[in-house]
Amino acid sequence: MERIESSKNQKVKDAKRLRYKKYRERDERFLIEGPHLIEEALKSGREIERIFADDPDKVPDVAGRYNIPTALVNEQVIQELTGVQNPQGLVAVCMIPSKPEKLVEGIYLLLDEIQDPGNVGTMIRTADAAGAKGVILGEGSADVYNEKAVRATQGSIFHIPVIQGPLEEWIDQLKEQGVPILGTGIAEGTSHTALAPLKSFALIVGNEGGGVKPELLEKTDQNVYIPIHGDAESLNVSVATGILLYHLRKG
Amino acid sequence: MERIESSKNQKVKDAKRLRYKKYRERDERFLIEGPHLIEEALKSGREIERIFADDPDKVPDVAGRYNIPTALVNEQVIQELTGVQNPQGLVAVCMIPSKPEKLVEGIYLLLDEIQDPGNVGTMIRTADAAGAKGVILGEGSADVYNEKAVRATQGSIFHIPVIQGPLEEWIDQLKEQGVPILGTGIAEGTSHTALAPLKSFALIVGNEGGGVKPELLEKTDQNVYIPIHGDAESLNVSVATGILLYHLRKG
Repeated sequence: MERIESSKNQKVKDAKRLRYKKYRERDERFLIEGPHLIEEALKSGREIERIFADDPDKVPDVAGRYNIPTALVNEQVIQELTGVQNPQGLVAVCMIPSKPEKLVEGIYLLLDEIQDPGNVGTMIRTADAAGAKGVILGEGSADVYNEKAVRATQGSIFHIPVIQGPLEEWIDQLKEQGVPILGTGIAEGTSHTALAPLKSFALIVGNEGGGVKPELLEKTDQNVYIPIHGDAESLNVSVATGILLYHLRKG
Repeated sequence: MERIESSKNQKVKDAKRLRYKKYRERDERFLIEGPHLIEEALKSGREIERIFADDPDKVPDVAGRYNIPTALVNEQVIQELTGVQNPQGLVAVCMIPSKPEKLVEGIYLLLDEIQDPGNVGTMIRTADAAGAKGVILGEGSADVYNEKAVRATQGSIFHIPVIQGPLEEWIDQLKEQGVPILGTGIAEGTSHTALAPLKSFALIVGNEGGGVKPELLEKTDQNVYIPIHGDAESLNVSVATGILLYHLRKG
C-alpha cells in the first residue's frame, strides 16, 4: 500500500479539488466518505479510482477484491479531503457516470431549484425507496455530488440514475414516452388524496421557499397539493416528496 | 427602547444561558430567532418575556401591541445569543408552557430517541400539518427547545403541545383514552398500505439508526413498516413519519 505523508502530493491535490463543483464537472469525479458508500458504489458497479485511508484496517475487503489503488495517509490529509468534523478515515474518488440517453416509462422525481444539499440527498434516497427510475435535478438545484448531498443519499446515489440538466427538455422527453407530468403547489391543483395510484409518472417538486416555477407548472398534465390540516404553513419539501411518491405509486 | 451595549449586561447573560438545555429547564424559558417565530409565538398566545434587536425597525409591530420589553443591542450581542452564521438581528426569550394534564382522543406522534434536532423540529412541523393533537418526545430525544429544533419546526412548536417525558407513561395514558398505539419497524408488522385510515392513533417512530426500542414495540397494538421498492436500505425518519401520518389519518 502506497504511503502519502503530505497534502502537497499530486494525488491528494487532485482529490481535494473535487470538493468544488467546478472541478467535479471538469474531472467527472467526486468524493465519497466512509466504508458504507464505498461498498455501495462497488456493489452497484461504479468505478472507484482511488481510496485514501488513515488506517489499512479501515479499507473494506471488497476494495481489495476490485484491486482499487489505495494510499495510506495521515489524519490531516483525510481532514482536508472531507468537510466533516469527525471523518471516518476513509475517502474515495469515484467516477461520475454518463447521462442515460433515453428515459423509459416509470416513476421519476424532478427537482426544481432545491437549494439545500441535504434535501437533495434525502429526496434521492426517498425516490430510490419508492422505486423511482431516476431523479432529474434542474438548473439551480444544489449539486448532487456535493459532499452533504452524497452523504444524505445514504448510498442511493449509486442505485438510481441522477441526471442534472434543464427540466424543460427532460419533461418534453418524458412526455414523448407517455409519462404523465405532475406538478406540486400549495395554492392550486388537486388534493393528492383525490388521485389514484399510477404506474408511471414524473413528479416535479420545487424550491424550499418558492415552490415550482410557474413556467414549469404550465407544462404539467396535473398539479397536486398536500392538504394542511393544522396550523403549519407548509411541509418540508423532502417530507412532502415522500408523502406524494408513496401515495402516487401503485401498491 | 432600552439600549444595551455590553454582553456582560445581566439580561443578556440570563438570555445567553438559555442556549444550554440545563438552563432552559431551570428557567423554563427558551430562545427564538427572527420575526416569523416571534409573530407565531404571539399569535398563538405564548408569552414572550423580552426581545433583543440590533435595529428598532426589525421589531415586529405585533410586539409593540403586546408591550413586550425590547432592548436595542449591537450585532455582537445578537451573535452571542444565536448559533447561526447570519443571524436575523432579532432574538426573543419565550416561556416554556406547562405540560397538558390529560390527553384527549386524536392523532399523536411519539419520538423515541430521535437524536438530530433538525429531525425533531421537522417532525413537529409534519405532525402539525397532519392535524396531530400533540407530539411526545421520549427520554434520549434531542431537546425540542434546542435552537436548531425550534427553527426546523417553522413555528409549529407554537401550534401544538410538545411534551417531553417517559414514553411508557404517556403510552399508558393514551391507552386509557382508547387511542390505538402503532409502532414502526423495518422487519416486522404490517405494511402501512394494508392499514385503513384512523381517526385517533398514536404513532411511535424511533432513533435514526436503531429504530423504536423493543420494549416499546411490545406495548403497541400494531406495528407497521413502509415497504422499500428500490435498493435503499431505509427512509429518513422525518420522511417516513410524513408518509405514515398522512396515510393513517382519515381524509
